[in-house]
Amino acid sequence: MASPARPKAISKIREFDLIRQLQQRYRAKSPLILRGIGDDAAVITPAKNRWQLLTTDLLTEGIHFDLRTATLSDIGFRAAAANLSDIAAMGGTPEYLLVSLAIPRSGTGRQVSHLYRGMMAACRPHNVKLIGGDMSASAAGWFINITLIGSSTARHVLLRSGARAGDALYVTGTLGDSLVGLKLLRQSQRGTATQPFSPRHRRFLMSRHLRPTARIVEGRWLCAKGWATSAIDISDGLSGDLRHICEESHVGAEITLSALPISSACRSYAESTKQDPAVLALAGGEDYELLFTVASRQRSRFERATATKHLHVTRIGTITPARSGLHMITQNGQRRLLPFISYEHFRSTH
Amino acid sequence: MASPARPKAISKIREFDLIRQLQQRYRAKSPLILRGIGDDAAVITPAKNRWQLLTTDLLTEGIHFDLRTATLSDIGFRAAAANLSDIAAMGGTPEYLLVSLAIPRSGTGRQVSHLYRGMMAACRPHNVKLIGGDMSASAAGWFINITLIGSSTARHVLLRSGARAGDALYVTGTLGDSLVGLKLLRQSQRGTATQPFSPRHRRFLMSRHLRPTARIVEGRWLCAKGWATSAIDISDGLSGDLRHICEESHVGAEITLSALPISSACRSYAESTKQDPAVLALAGGEDYELLFTVASRQRSRFERATATKHLHVTRIGTITPARSGLHMITQNGQRRLLPFISYEHFRSTH
Repeated sequence: MASPARPKAISKIREFDLIRQLQQRYRAKSPLILRGIGDDAAVITPAKNRWQLLTTDLLTEGIHFDLRTATLSDIGFRAAAANLSDIAAMGGTPEYLLVSLAIPRSGTGRQVSHLYRGMMAACRPHNVKLIGGDMSASAAGWFINITLIGSSTARHVLLRSGARAGDALYVTGTLGDSLVGLKLLRQSQRGTATQPFSPRHRRFLMSRHLRPTARIVEGRWLCAKGWATSAIDISDGLSGDLRHICEESHVGAEITLSALPISSACRSYAESTKQDPAVLALAGGEDYELLFTVASRQRSRFERATATKHLHVTRIGTITPARSGLHMITQNGQRRLLPFISYEHFRSTH
Repeated sequence: MASPARPKAISKIREFDLIRQLQQRYRAKSPLILRGIGDDAAVITPAKNRWQLLTTDLLTEGIHFDLRTATLSDIGFRAAAANLSDIAAMGGTPEYLLVSLAIPRSGTGRQVSHLYRGMMAACRPHNVKLIGGDMSASAAGWFINITLIGSSTARHVLLRSGARAGDALYVTGTLGDSLVGLKLLRQSQRGTATQPFSPRHRRFLMSRHLRPTARIVEGRWLCAKGWATSAIDISDGLSGDLRHICEESHVGAEITLSALPISSACRSYAESTKQDPAVLALAGGEDYELLFTVASRQRSRFERATATKHLHVTRIGTITPARSGLHMITQNGQRRLLPFISYEHFRSTH
């Protein structure tokens, strides 16, 4: 009997096989999961007396990733990290994962398996469980959509909207590494890497792009202790993401370029390419660091606490009234409007 | 300052504008939603003492839809209906929606708006609230990923795995309409519609393809009353989806072709094109009807109850022991192996 005229890609049979393999490999065991992969929907018992957090993120080939500069395992890792980072920015604990894949005709089961391996490598330290998803053929490249479910205590959740004039502005880790890592990966793929550059720095920066760390521990601590008045993760770039906090909180901000935390690898790259490291830090997206605010009266106690806990956190500016707008203090002490520069790939979680 | 070298599509600014418009238009108000669109993640209070249901579904241009035969509003409606149908098949109540879109360079804000309008038209009767999503540029066509969250009473949920030998097999509504609707839409787009055919039937069949009804009411009733021992929605086609029930329940099945519910429009199309309507019913996917089983001792009571409630439900066969496999009784009374025919587009929720 003829089957209806739909474009045939990877066959139904092969899809079922893939799903069965994934069911076996990543079968989540938990008394809270009545049904994971393998029914029309996953069935779970949500955590009691907690807010539930839900975020979804789409990564598309040719826009968010390039198979010439990253393996499918790296891409899976980064896709999961982007979602974990959204939960971190709310101060939450990530719990469950749903994954949709559109696979091009050239795609193989081995590639799908690598993609899942990368995703689960990012999720495993946080004990996040795969509970469902969808697979489809793609007429063009790879598309990966992840939905991540988490929770936070009912007492606190970190919103973008809680910043107040006078709050101090902080960021975790260092900025600009992911952008430089991507530049290095592209150069090395094109064979255009000309500047002399330490292999150790190169590896560090590439790894910051390919295997970013979602700041789950930091986000939970900021939330549980009630330190942060607002938070966001840096996916679009500092200048873009700070704008989100300012819009949602109805405030302005002033950042000090000389205070921006920049890794020695990034600084060394900037020197060797005669670029301003502060521009790399401002423009660089996908660092997945947390940008957050702390009330001014808490500032000293907070900074002592981060020192005690050995958390890498840097004060980079201050929240101002809305009418002041967004400014930066440049290296020579001038106060300038903060330009809107960011990863220009039309992408953000909303 | 130069922005990093990423392919630029619809600009960041335009994305933020789109998101802001959607926030305004579909702002969900509910005491259970602390934060919808507009933060790193949505924040909700899950329903108490209920199972939570989570499903995700990816639709890709050129595989699941074709802009020559459907408007973006139709595509949005169908994408939402596919997910609503997964919740219906679990016997649940749909509650929240997260939408990811990858938009090709040619895509316009107006098209995005139509897509959302279609999705929300499917969701509104069920009071489903949009709480988040993601937007991205696409290097190729449109990609739509929907994650739908629902809930069911903690007492019952309809799984694929509960069917037992002896159970009666039922289906809601009629089968094959969506497939024929798609054929008609394609013919009309190519200008190859030759057979004489009633405009009323044509409209009915096209609408069954473009605006399918998720059987939420039926699913909830089957679940709440404890009638069904197992259930699935028909997205791949009867022969494929029955196979899922049999595999998950470790049973076989026998269906009677002459019993398959076929609309007069579908029957009329089959006649005019000299096709076997039973083949259309078996092969046709995306009908989004429910296929379910009822214990044999409940059969009479169940059928009386459906008559009282005026639910369109048809008994099409019986569950058999696993060793019997999957069979069909043909129109001339012969018992044959049930062939595996389905929408061959490598797609199913797992």
